[in-house]
Amino acid sequence: MKIGGVPTRSVRVEPDGWSIGIFDQRRLPWRVERLVLNACPAAAEAIATMATRGAPLIGVVGAYGLAFALQDDPSDAGLAQAHALLAQTRPTAVNLRWALDRIAAHVRPLPAGQRAAAAHAEAGRIADEDEAMNRAIGAAGVPLIADIAARRAGAPVRILVHCNPGWLATVDWGTATAPIYRAHDAGIALHVWVDETRPRNQGALTAFELAEHGVPHAVVVDNAGGYLMQRGEVDLVLVGTDRVTANGDVCNKIGTYLKALAARAHRIPFCVALPSSTYDPATATGAAIPIEQRNADEVRFVEGPDESGIVRRIAVTASPAANPAFDVTPAELVSAWVTDRGVFTSPEDLARAMERR
Amino acid sequence: MKIGGVPTRSVRVEPDGWSIGIFDQRRLPWRVERLVLNACPAAAEAIATMATRGAPLIGVVGAYGLAFALQDDPSDAGLAQAHALLAQTRPTAVNLRWALDRIAAHVRPLPAGQRAAAAHAEAGRIADEDEAMNRAIGAAGVPLIADIAARRAGAPVRILVHCNPGWLATVDWGTATAPIYRAHDAGIALHVWVDETRPRNQGALTAFELAEHGVPHAVVVDNAGGYLMQRGEVDLVLVGTDRVTANGDVCNKIGTYLKALAARAHRIPFCVALPSSTYDPATATGAAIPIEQRNADEVRFVEGPDESGIVRRIAVTASPAANPAFDVTPAELVSAWVTDRGVFTSPEDLARAMERR
Repeated sequence: MKIGGVPTRSVRVEPDGWSIGIFDQRRLPWRVERLVLNACPAAAEAIATMATRGAPLIGVVGAYGLAFALQDDPSDAGLAQAHALLAQTRPTAVNLRWALDRIAAHVRPLPAGQRAAAAHAEAGRIADEDEAMNRAIGAAGVPLIADIAARRAGAPVRILVHCNPGWLATVDWGTATAPIYRAHDAGIALHVWVDETRPRNQGALTAFELAEHGVPHAVVVDNAGGYLMQRGEVDLVLVGTDRVTANGDVCNKIGTYLKALAARAHRIPFCVALPSSTYDPATATGAAIPIEQRNADEVRFVEGPDESGIVRRIAVTASPAANPAFDVTPAELVSAWVTDRGVFTSPEDLARAMERR
Repeated sequence: MKIGGVPTRSVRVEPDGWSIGIFDQRRLPWRVERLVLNACPAAAEAIATMATRGAPLIGVVGAYGLAFALQDDPSDAGLAQAHALLAQTRPTAVNLRWALDRIAAHVRPLPAGQRAAAAHAEAGRIADEDEAMNRAIGAAGVPLIADIAARRAGAPVRILVHCNPGWLATVDWGTATAPIYRAHDAGIALHVWVDETRPRNQGALTAFELAEHGVPHAVVVDNAGGYLMQRGEVDLVLVGTDRVTANGDVCNKIGTYLKALAARAHRIPFCVALPSSTYDPATATGAAIPIEQRNADEVRFVEGPDESGIVRRIAVTASPAANPAFDVTPAELVSAWVTDRGVFTSPEDLARAMERR
């Protein structure tokens, strides 16, 4: 998608043909700054500190991180060590482990001298496939929005989005935003309610993306969704996910579950967009997913620019805080899983389509 | 309750016997600063800007505001004008209108020269009654907590609180916090989950109160409640309210409804604490309550101290925002209404008890 009118990907290979450039998402949307990475520890740190974030994107960055590690130490032991270092940075997202496993399986049969280059090329393929999957999610999801638009008779389709399942969290297009961008480009009138998504306010990233692309939207606090549904102001809830388990349970950013419960209470479709890499057939149900408990200071402090544009960190509370980062929405609350392989309305259909990996 | 070990009320008559002193709640919990008011426009402004806040407290401040107005112009026209000015500052809370109506009814039969003093004395009675009602809410609510404590066999009772239904929002004790303070003082082990309560972060006030009183607690983002319930970490949800309608519907700070839905999904008691002044028999259901739409900048900016203690205002998003301030929890999701007249588990019982006004 575009930043300042220029088509941009969230991760790119730099002109040296080896380093990668990512946006420092701790600075976005206030400053558009690139970070250049060419070492495994730096890639791990970028993921752990959320300089780069979003389940699909951290898979790609992790994959490149493994390539960087193999340049220093292409042995089996070096591979295992780097894999472990990268995998523990974000335990909840399945894409990261999926991408690391794929790189490891790809390079393990190769002679040590070829491993780094092969891993780098494979990471590039993962990035290209991610973009293609998101395009496909967009194509699959547009009819859901078009159907609502037909009933709305020209009035905007009101879509509530939680967190940043946008192109900044993927390589391009985003997951939940892909149908939104495609519908908007197709001339369907939209209004997107953007959940602020405390504690890290990823809603500001979604709002930034939508603003750059010209999609009408308004940011609301995470508390507002119930009210908006109560008053008939939401036609569709559309979220991304960090992991969908074998039974269709959806692990996503903390607060997603509350919106799913409200959508059910008001009979509003609650749809989850995911690339097939986010489906985890090895985990039976959401109850088995380790939920990352992040630093309490993410709750206790907020960062943003003051009126002079200087980014400041201010305190929200002086008290202790708890910071669970994800919750699980049971499959029974999901109206549809919107994937690169089509739209599925039952977990059984989803599982069948995802078997072809 | 106490600040720095000193028993304090949230509103007091100053040594001149006429002005009132309140805490500037826009500064709390970072600075404990008193605002002294002795004119109606200043009282109206303090309410509108949320320098003073909390349904019961703004009723008291509004009542004094009417007394201040009557000192300048004790005519029927002056009374009507001041009543209208004060009533429009916060349209959702019923206590404000209730207190203003009570003062007006009290002074209307009196000669003009006696009205201001009579209004001032009546405002003092409203304050004293508020404190007494909250004490009674505390006494009524303790058994709910004690029953859970008995089942928890010594482990802390985990109570989720939304917004600041605390003593800072009332004259003393608070509404939903009154049973918490009394249970804590009675030696029942508690752990309070304090919802941050965006956009205005009143959770920081609740956390400040609990810290000063020594009640164990942790602040969580508003998104976390569903997760905590899912994981079995909440025994009771306890909230205040700005208005309970004839049928038992509960209007409270935005986000309350999402917690009520989650509590129902997990069969966790969802209890609402209210003084009888918050019950509004004249409004049939929650659908008829005007929901205040506050300034979008409350969502777009956050204030708090930086590391040097300087209070700064930082931006959350550069996008447009919407800011509905309240939502309505239908009576069917309420397990109990905890009032100064006892605990009621059906809206019919509540209505009967509230008929004696």
